[in-house]
Amino acid sequence: MQVSFTLAEISAITLPARTVGATTEPIRGIASLGTAQPGDITFLGNNKYKASVPATQASVVLLPPDYVGTPGPNQVHLIVENPSAALSRLCSRIEQALWPKPKAGVHPSAVVAKGARIAPSATIGPLCVVEDGASVGERTYLQSGVFVGRGSFVGEDCWLMAGVVVSAECTVGKRVRLHPGVVIGADGFGYELAKGRHEKVPQVGTVVLGDDVEVGANSTIDRSRFEKTAVGEGTKIDNLVQIGHNVVIGSHCLLCGQVGIAGSTTLGDYVVVGGQCGVAGHLNVGSGAMIAAHSGVKDDIPAKTTVWGSPSLPLLLEQKLTILRNRLPELFKRVGELEKKAGKG
Amino acid sequence: MQVSFTLAEISAITLPARTVGATTEPIRGIASLGTAQPGDITFLGNNKYKASVPATQASVVLLPPDYVGTPGPNQVHLIVENPSAALSRLCSRIEQALWPKPKAGVHPSAVVAKGARIAPSATIGPLCVVEDGASVGERTYLQSGVFVGRGSFVGEDCWLMAGVVVSAECTVGKRVRLHPGVVIGADGFGYELAKGRHEKVPQVGTVVLGDDVEVGANSTIDRSRFEKTAVGEGTKIDNLVQIGHNVVIGSHCLLCGQVGIAGSTTLGDYVVVGGQCGVAGHLNVGSGAMIAAHSGVKDDIPAKTTVWGSPSLPLLLEQKLTILRNRLPELFKRVGELEKKAGKG
Amino acid sequence: MQVSFTLAEISAITLPARTVGATTEPIRGIASLGTAQPGDITFLGNNKYKASVPATQASVVLLPPDYVGTPGPNQVHLIVENPSAALSRLCSRIEQALWPKPKAGVHPSAVVAKGARIAPSATIGPLCVVEDGASVGERTYLQSGVFVGRGSFVGEDCWLMAGVVVSAECTVGKRVRLHPGVVIGADGFGYELAKGRHEKVPQVGTVVLGDDVEVGANSTIDRSRFEKTAVGEGTKIDNLVQIGHNVVIGSHCLLCGQVGIAGSTTLGDYVVVGGQCGVAGHLNVGSGAMIAAHSGVKDDIPAKTTVWGSPSLPLLLEQKLTILRNRLPELFKRVGELEKKAGKG
Repeated sequence: MQVSFTLAEISAITLPARTVGATTEPIRGIASLGTAQPGDITFLGNNKYKASVPATQASVVLLPPDYVGTPGPNQVHLIVENPSAALSRLCSRIEQALWPKPKAGVHPSAVVAKGARIAPSATIGPLCVVEDGASVGERTYLQSGVFVGRGSFVGEDCWLMAGVVVSAECTVGKRVRLHPGVVIGADGFGYELAKGRHEKVPQVGTVVLGDDVEVGANSTIDRSRFEKTAVGEGTKIDNLVQIGHNVVIGSHCLLCGQVGIAGSTTLGDYVVVGGQCGVAGHLNVGSGAMIAAHSGVKDDIPAKTTVWGSPSLPLLLEQKLTILRNRLPELFKRVGELEKKAGKG
Repeated sequence: MQVSFTLAEISAITLPARTVGATTEPIRGIASLGTAQPGDITFLGNNKYKASVPATQASVVLLPPDYVGTPGPNQVHLIVENPSAALSRLCSRIEQALWPKPKAGVHPSAVVAKGARIAPSATIGPLCVVEDGASVGERTYLQSGVFVGRGSFVGEDCWLMAGVVVSAECTVGKRVRLHPGVVIGADGFGYELAKGRHEKVPQVGTVVLGDDVEVGANSTIDRSRFEKTAVGEGTKIDNLVQIGHNVVIGSHCLLCGQVGIAGSTTLGDYVVVGGQCGVAGHLNVGSGAMIAAHSGVKDDIPAKTTVWGSPSLPLLLEQKLTILRNRLPELFKRVGELEKKAGKG
Repeated sequence: MQVSFTLAEISAITLPARTVGATTEPIRGIASLGTAQPGDITFLGNNKYKASVPATQASVVLLPPDYVGTPGPNQVHLIVENPSAALSRLCSRIEQALWPKPKAGVHPSAVVAKGARIAPSATIGPLCVVEDGASVGERTYLQSGVFVGRGSFVGEDCWLMAGVVVSAECTVGKRVRLHPGVVIGADGFGYELAKGRHEKVPQVGTVVLGDDVEVGANSTIDRSRFEKTAVGEGTKIDNLVQIGHNVVIGSHCLLCGQVGIAGSTTLGDYVVVGGQCGVAGHLNVGSGAMIAAHSGVKDDIPAKTTVWGSPSLPLLLEQKLTILRNRLPELFKRVGELEKKAGKG
């Protein structure tokens, strides 16, 4: 994508308290201090990288008020309150260029049932399918090849990207972003062994995603046996995450990539789950709990507790045990020496 | 979805031995004892929740013969042989409403090759693609955006949900359910390093799924190098599971979410693999073996053996080692004290 | 798929130094020594299976020059320099039959924007979407239901299989193979907590895949915050792998199934990552490093180092610690006996 900003435009977005230096370069890219080239804007987001500022090739550098230094030739220093936030404002502007608002309406190649309700300002992209009784809210964008099953409800200002599947009778809140390949509402994994065969336990519940939820590419959230699988307002879920049936996740949680939450487990609010963690079924994870990456959780976690390991333990204990395990060779040696002494004795 | 059952309809489905009490509420939902509201049916599936029955707000409660207690006002107790099974019968009825049988025929937006064989009672949903030489059996339902590649065979009474991909020359048995985003028959992961480059080893085998197999959303089962990757009759696979090339899985196994089975490994019958387990390649896992969640398996597992851990060990041993690891701080202290004594001695 | 080769055709492909015996069977399948039937070709790829050669039912057996033995009745031994390589040449021939070159052109059901550039020799399969400003190179094949977003570039001789998503402004090199369900360019997972809510950090970077990259089914590679997420030339990625934003992967790496690489981590060249490994963010993994399966990496790895475990350690150390952990019951017993002795003393 070609973006191009003049220094004046950059200044209008980043609102510098002070501008030092001058450049003739239009700004066409963003880069980190070390990799930036002329024509790029960069920023000092963390004072530990301060030493990299003088050598940066960027044409514009966003710097905090306490930075001391002068720009190079054909380079501008913009002194801003918070360089990282200023950059995010610029990125938001670029995001609007990267993802321009699509025109409202239903693409002629989409298959929309007569009984579906499509808000006038919604965009139904090419080759989407919206089944009977489904509802798509105002300004919501179904990008391409999206499937919204019978009776499902998708709220306002959502963005369902290419290939997303929302199965029948599910509910998606407002301002929800579902990345490509997300599957909402596949059957929960439930069987009863009868006469040597796994008989399917019907999964007739639903999935409810709160407002401002975001779900990463190819993640899956299963419908419940009955009642609902729920994800609370503002919770963000990364790629390839599996949420089992009847799981209830609170508000403002973060679930990193490849996490798995087994059936009927409950997470409170503001829970953070590191990448590749597995949480067993029927557990309670208290609000504010944190689970370090790659952990396997098989017990409840109290609120505001950080755990690590497999099976997970309170963080400090697991760190101590990890260190002691690394000292096993020494311990075996010490015990051997004690035995030698004792043998002599 | 709106469901509504009268008490008479509920009774006709759940076949109570005894009915106690009366209600004027139509039944519109199913809920657990603690969350049920008037208008809901609930059940006592496990006697440990017995104490929650008197306080439930449900209008109808399915209870086992040995339950002692009386219904509240406007509440009915239905005494049934097996409350959980009775509820499942009700759920099956709801399932039929949730997933009504689609009309037979090919949606006009589907792209079906002339050389494909579609059974007259099959349903090919919108925007599906069936390539040349592929075959779709009687009463099978391709929901939406399903791809069935050249020469593949899909049996009778299957359900391939939105976005499923069955690559060329694969075989799907009868009554198979593939959830959204499942990929059957992508290339196995095989390369040979030659002159510093990974040269692709062609993967020209196939995938064969037995009857009554179910595969969860976004799971992937790779085609073999040659011969076949096989999943036996009645085996159930959860979401985001990866089955490598030339893997052979027996009948009636359960593979939970995010499991990975590396290439050429063989599982017997009735194997249960817990969530997020990884099984290395070229191994044999005996029939009836169980692998506890989050385990990493790098050795063969004898039949009827339960293992746990990474690398996995027999369950009781791993449990013992886990406990002893937790006692390492104590052990280090004890050894330190012995050394003090020995030093004195 | 029906393949059929005469012995003369097999010989022309495998170029045997010597042919022993004769068969009247046309060759219709490939199988391993133990499972081959008449009509199959098999091979001795590893001398440890030498004892299985005399009993094989295969009609044709590829054997190395040093093999001593005679064919059975109606069986042929083909003595070749490298039986595995000879078989691969045969498989390549079968692969061409399995995946015949599609006809160039745009399927009438595809939705191609006017501003998209489709090379004349490219094939755009049914129900694909190519957005404005996107570019598809010569001889590249978009199989079915593929999405190529606005401004993306797909090079020559690529194969994007059913349901692949290449989001806007991404770059795919030459001879790249993306298996079904791959998602390139979903947003990276970045938020900043502000007033109790996770505010999205815009992800306006891109993804760049080098030449000869292969990505397995349902894997996901996120776009960067800015700059690019990059996968180097010749790197091969298995199924259900997650590559976070701003990750930079070198050339000729192998990433096995269900691996996760968290944001901003860098891998050198020829790195091998075993199945289900997780690598934390902002790390450096040196060229030639190997990470054994199921490991959790939270520290940098020097070049040419092999690590294992969670948290991972150098392989030999982790192997030693694993053995010593297994000896904990013995150690506790030995310490107990020392204490008994010391108590007596």
